[in-house]
Amino acid sequence: MKLNTITFTLKKGAGSRYTQLYDTICRDILQGKMKKGDQLPSIRNAAKQLNLSRTTIENAYQRLLTEGLIIAQPQRGYFVDADETQSELRKEIMNTSVLTQKEETMIDLRTSSIDVSAFDTTVWLHYIKLVLQNHTWLTSYGDSQGEFLLRKAIQKYSYAMRGVLCKEDQIVIGANFQSLLYLICSLYEGKKVIGMEKSGFRQAEQVFTDCGFTIIYLDSDEEGISITNLKTKELGMLYINSASCGTKKRPLHSKRRKALLDYVNEQNIILLEDDHNGELRYQTKLRPAVQGFDSHGNVIYMRSFSKLLLPSIRMSFMVLNQDMMTRYLKKKRNYHPSASKLEQLTLAHYLMDGHMEKQIRQLRKRYEAKSSLMIKLLETYFPDKLYLLDESNLQVLLYMGNEKELSFYTETAEKQRILVQGTEQNVIALSFASVAEETLVKAVVSLAKIW
Amino acid sequence: MKLNTITFTLKKGAGSRYTQLYDTICRDILQGKMKKGDQLPSIRNAAKQLNLSRTTIENAYQRLLTEGLIIAQPQRGYFVDADETQSELRKEIMNTSVLTQKEETMIDLRTSSIDVSAFDTTVWLHYIKLVLQNHTWLTSYGDSQGEFLLRKAIQKYSYAMRGVLCKEDQIVIGANFQSLLYLICSLYEGKKVIGMEKSGFRQAEQVFTDCGFTIIYLDSDEEGISITNLKTKELGMLYINSASCGTKKRPLHSKRRKALLDYVNEQNIILLEDDHNGELRYQTKLRPAVQGFDSHGNVIYMRSFSKLLLPSIRMSFMVLNQDMMTRYLKKKRNYHPSASKLEQLTLAHYLMDGHMEKQIRQLRKRYEAKSSLMIKLLETYFPDKLYLLDESNLQVLLYMGNEKELSFYTETAEKQRILVQGTEQNVIALSFASVAEETLVKAVVSLAKIW
Repeated sequence: MKLNTITFTLKKGAGSRYTQLYDTICRDILQGKMKKGDQLPSIRNAAKQLNLSRTTIENAYQRLLTEGLIIAQPQRGYFVDADETQSELRKEIMNTSVLTQKEETMIDLRTSSIDVSAFDTTVWLHYIKLVLQNHTWLTSYGDSQGEFLLRKAIQKYSYAMRGVLCKEDQIVIGANFQSLLYLICSLYEGKKVIGMEKSGFRQAEQVFTDCGFTIIYLDSDEEGISITNLKTKELGMLYINSASCGTKKRPLHSKRRKALLDYVNEQNIILLEDDHNGELRYQTKLRPAVQGFDSHGNVIYMRSFSKLLLPSIRMSFMVLNQDMMTRYLKKKRNYHPSASKLEQLTLAHYLMDGHMEKQIRQLRKRYEAKSSLMIKLLETYFPDKLYLLDESNLQVLLYMGNEKELSFYTETAEKQRILVQGTEQNVIALSFASVAEETLVKAVVSLAKIW
Repeated sequence: MKLNTITFTLKKGAGSRYTQLYDTICRDILQGKMKKGDQLPSIRNAAKQLNLSRTTIENAYQRLLTEGLIIAQPQRGYFVDADETQSELRKEIMNTSVLTQKEETMIDLRTSSIDVSAFDTTVWLHYIKLVLQNHTWLTSYGDSQGEFLLRKAIQKYSYAMRGVLCKEDQIVIGANFQSLLYLICSLYEGKKVIGMEKSGFRQAEQVFTDCGFTIIYLDSDEEGISITNLKTKELGMLYINSASCGTKKRPLHSKRRKALLDYVNEQNIILLEDDHNGELRYQTKLRPAVQGFDSHGNVIYMRSFSKLLLPSIRMSFMVLNQDMMTRYLKKKRNYHPSASKLEQLTLAHYLMDGHMEKQIRQLRKRYEAKSSLMIKLLETYFPDKLYLLDESNLQVLLYMGNEKELSFYTETAEKQRILVQGTEQNVIALSFASVAEETLVKAVVSLAKIW
């Protein structure tokens, strides 16, 4: 352990004195000139040696302390404390400066994005400004259940658009679907067995697994979950995507809805309804949500706004049944809000002023045109393949048969700079949501050539 | 089941034709004039009877269908389907119109808010605009790990301000602390026993309980968790709030830090470091985070930005160790992003342009003044009581002794329109963060009178 003197010359225009001193010592440590355990001069001595003020030395030492490069030992002084093995990482972090977003030059036919040109960012920005201007709204975390204003707006919207019947007290807002599912699992007291169609909604399955649930896959027919098959299982909860059911990916028909409701009421178990873009119909007729038909209080209704607004705005909500609501209110203090209050209040005003209905009319027009184009393209370029429009997921499913492995399709497409996603049994999901019409033509023509 | 005729007269200036028709039928159903099972005229007949276009009838029927008031039966026609027991709820939802935020006239000394006047909303809005202008950023959900730009910015910021040493790959962004804790529990494969100080952080405890962990409360002394006590336990994970440790609520001292690190390295268990406002020191010196001293890869670092920015902006992050990182990358597709991408990119720019450092300097000045005032007030008005500044939590703890129940203090305060929060053993936590200085004086004077 040796006492170091600091060799240091002040340069004009090279930053403040303390920064220059910090830079010098930092470099000496990272280059190994000063080693772990070496002592630095005291603040008084350093000030004297270098002809600088004590404050300058203190500020430089403080920054070195904060970054963990040196350590202060009471009555003894300052010592180098940096682990040499981490010098490279330190240099890397310090040299991070200009940031660039990675360029995307691929055609993305996966399901992760939407047509943003249909979204009027000016309107959204207008409401953000409005909310930011009102300081008192922003000082606090807000209601962990979600803002009252937004819950009122959602109550009204969900009734008008989906036939959902609830009090605003039953509504809980969350940043995403998963945070709401964790909450449901946290409140749930029944048998930890959940039944669902094998749809590949892995994010939901992950939550149930984390919370100790057993997942049972149920057989489906054209209309959705097969009631005969369902009756052979012993479930605590039943999960359905009511906007895209069964092998035909259609919204739940009233007959099957009744059969499912009869089943859950008889068994007295919870029906978890995921109404995924239920109102986003552009080729078939709207069907209301199951929740509005639940007279026994066994349905929990859930959904996200991701594909109606911007996917980059994270906002989901659920409507609890009476039982879960009572339990929630008792434990409410145990949960933090997850959705941004600023975005919640922005959305509340957006909904109340009727912009969502306008937005959905826009989206319907666009997706009607795009899906029709997509179907025509597939009929022309893949005449011998079966396909299916999965309306609420904004994608066409193309059945490729068993000749080749799924990876053949995804990999050859990627070579053409086209990203596609495969589902089980060699089905390729082609999402048309975010892609311009001329690009869709180009993409399908390319895929037809290579496949 | 009777076939209803619709009695309806079109009024000028009372909205579109279909809305007026919808209103009439809806009222008839809700008032019980039309009952469940009653048949409506066919679209053709209604158009003829009422002398309206088929489209008008169709639109009105469609809205009734969506709201679940009527049902369409193929080849048979339209039937009233509304459950009479829910008529009142339907009326209530439909009559929701003007929304008002509830007025807050209470003085809030609980810990849920901050001094928003220190936050420059203009700067924040500037970056929101910048991000909203760049459409391509907003079309997609984004990286479920958090935006690359923000992870780079956080890497640099956390090193400079907290001495955190990590690659941007190790950083995961989440909307709140709880969503990150669920993720940790989901990735964790060790013994499900977690040790922590009895701090009353119920939101964290809730997550551990949901994920099947056993929580063990550890004894503390002035410096934090007692090492002797710790060594008698068998833990899988150790949780610490490194910015507010032990009975003195001080940042973790280097000696205790070393002892804790030695312990977790010896046991090869995870140290979960919650660095709650670690950089927000205004009365004592900064101490760097534990993470930067971890040479064995056993520390996971977590924190939220709620009290540095606006609490209404939901943004937390964590730095995983290498093991958890490897597991995370394998399962990454199973998790949805929870923090708003718009707010993530806004924060990335805000951090890179150095606004956070400015903001923290502002906050330090304000909280230094407020905490000093608060201490003076308590010395003057509660001269016989012990108190303790809990710096990073922006509150003063007032030890009330055992004369009266906690509820006495909270209830009498509320009568004076002052909201306070009690912790275990009759300690009242008085948060000065969001309250103006003159209001602090008023509040303490009032409390001294009634207590």
